[in-house]
Amino acid sequence: MATNTVSQVVPSPAEDAAALLKAFQGWGTDEQAVIAILARRDATQRKQITLTYEQMYNESLLQRLQSELSGDFERAMCHWILDPDERQAVMANAAMKCIQEEYPVIIEIAGTNSPAELIQVKKAYHVLYKCSLEEDVAACTTGNLRSLLLALVSTYRYDGNYVNMGLAKSEAKIVHEAVRNGTIDHEELIRIVGTRSKAQLKATFSCFKDEHSSSITKALLHATDSTCYLRALRSTVRCIADANKYFAKVLRNATREAGTDEDTLTRVVVMHAEKDMKGISDAFQKRSSVTLEQVIAKETSGDYRSFLMALLGS
Amino acid sequence: MATNTVSQVVPSPAEDAAALLKAFQGWGTDEQAVIAILARRDATQRKQITLTYEQMYNESLLQRLQSELSGDFERAMCHWILDPDERQAVMANAAMKCIQEEYPVIIEIAGTNSPAELIQVKKAYHVLYKCSLEEDVAACTTGNLRSLLLALVSTYRYDGNYVNMGLAKSEAKIVHEAVRNGTIDHEELIRIVGTRSKAQLKATFSCFKDEHSSSITKALLHATDSTCYLRALRSTVRCIADANKYFAKVLRNATREAGTDEDTLTRVVVMHAEKDMKGISDAFQKRSSVTLEQVIAKETSGDYRSFLMALLGS
Repeated sequence: MATNTVSQVVPSPAEDAAALLKAFQGWGTDEQAVIAILARRDATQRKQITLTYEQMYNESLLQRLQSELSGDFERAMCHWILDPDERQAVMANAAMKCIQEEYPVIIEIAGTNSPAELIQVKKAYHVLYKCSLEEDVAACTTGNLRSLLLALVSTYRYDGNYVNMGLAKSEAKIVHEAVRNGTIDHEELIRIVGTRSKAQLKATFSCFKDEHSSSITKALLHATDSTCYLRALRSTVRCIADANKYFAKVLRNATREAGTDEDTLTRVVVMHAEKDMKGISDAFQKRSSVTLEQVIAKETSGDYRSFLMALLGS
Repeated sequence: MATNTVSQVVPSPAEDAAALLKAFQGWGTDEQAVIAILARRDATQRKQITLTYEQMYNESLLQRLQSELSGDFERAMCHWILDPDERQAVMANAAMKCIQEEYPVIIEIAGTNSPAELIQVKKAYHVLYKCSLEEDVAACTTGNLRSLLLALVSTYRYDGNYVNMGLAKSEAKIVHEAVRNGTIDHEELIRIVGTRSKAQLKATFSCFKDEHSSSITKALLHATDSTCYLRALRSTVRCIADANKYFAKVLRNATREAGTDEDTLTRVVVMHAEKDMKGISDAFQKRSSVTLEQVIAKETSGDYRSFLMALLGS
């Protein structure tokens, strides 16, 4: 469930475009007006506003926002007004500039979209970059990290409910064999995690836990690897097993008192506000004494805070 | 271009269904009548006939054909009446029972469908087998053969015309380095062949030839490998470089005087008759003193021959 609220009575795209231009004009930008309009429009409405703004004023709304706003607020708003498929394509492409740190972006896009949604993201990638998501992921990685991320973005997974329980048991055993003694058979692990359906994988993870009284992610902790591959594998397993719990943890890490990771905070809130942010927020609160809104309000400030709060429905 | 001819005046699906039932009844099946109807209907018409036949007579047309016909003719006709996406899903699934021999089926499906068509085949696979094409390919293979075939069926390739010539040159160099001295860097080879767009790969193959006066497939001949992986890699390169030439060669091998390979013959003719068989037939004749029709007429007989001839437009 989404957290952002869309205005019940929405002005025409032309009225919104005019109100945005008015917010940009004069001494200083009226950031609150920009938030009041754009945070309360759904993806289709934002697209209409963007098109109408360009037709009416012969300039790109995205570029105008980039020049009018700044810092974390600017980055968040410029991601927000993109079409969701396009936004994910842009985020994936940016992540590849620094894949050793940014691999979670790829895992999240592959792990939380349905197979049909992932194809839409890949189509947007083709249009924007004149190449495939797959070839760029493959070109910026090597070894096991490449095999894992490439399988994640490539596979058109089965997304029906059918689960083969015999297969879940036998593959839980293969995974156990694969991680035993810390000498991991990565090829088999990646094959299973990279190609099986999410429903099937949840059953396999559950069989593993029943049999060994420990989760796969904990078992993987015993293995050592000098690259970020094993961390990526654990993130993948957690994201597939329970996406809400996974994102709640990502947000906890991003809002630690030692220092806020605004880029991660922006990514999760902007990408999930109109999709499944309610579940993430609930999962967050289950493990914390405070709500997600309280933590984000405490760790951020100014227009950036106002914008995130609006997306969270506060 | 297709080779089969669709009747200009087509009876209603109910009339066709009734005519088929008539051909099945009495002493012996009237195979020529079955061919005269089904070989001259397009995929949509065949689907309608199949549905109508089942509604009218409360039995599956496919099962009735299986019981009325036999041998190579039966297998060819039973593949022909399937929906093209379903047919490819069935053929891919069957190939995995004996992947060391049948890997060309996978290469051909991945190599000759557009990215959008390949998704349709994968959707049909989900419906038929309640799992993904990718997980089955991954589960029936290991090592380099797995990496190659999995990349081929997984990647949603870019299919625009844009070609990066600088990249073509640098990757032709990577391929050259990879195959030099017969010690092949398979990971890089598979990455390039498995993820780049077909237009990009054709440019890379062409750069390789310009630079080294030899094709990549010839260069790969110097490498040794105990599995069928290198043969699969060469087939992939040939299929992407020039599909018509590739299939012409497959048909030449399948119709050698030493013995006809009817399964391969059926696969290529049935899968391509209503798509691109004309180009394959022309490519065949370029390298032979006889036409494809003449060779197939010579190497086959009976109803099987009549059916293939009808699909070839003779």
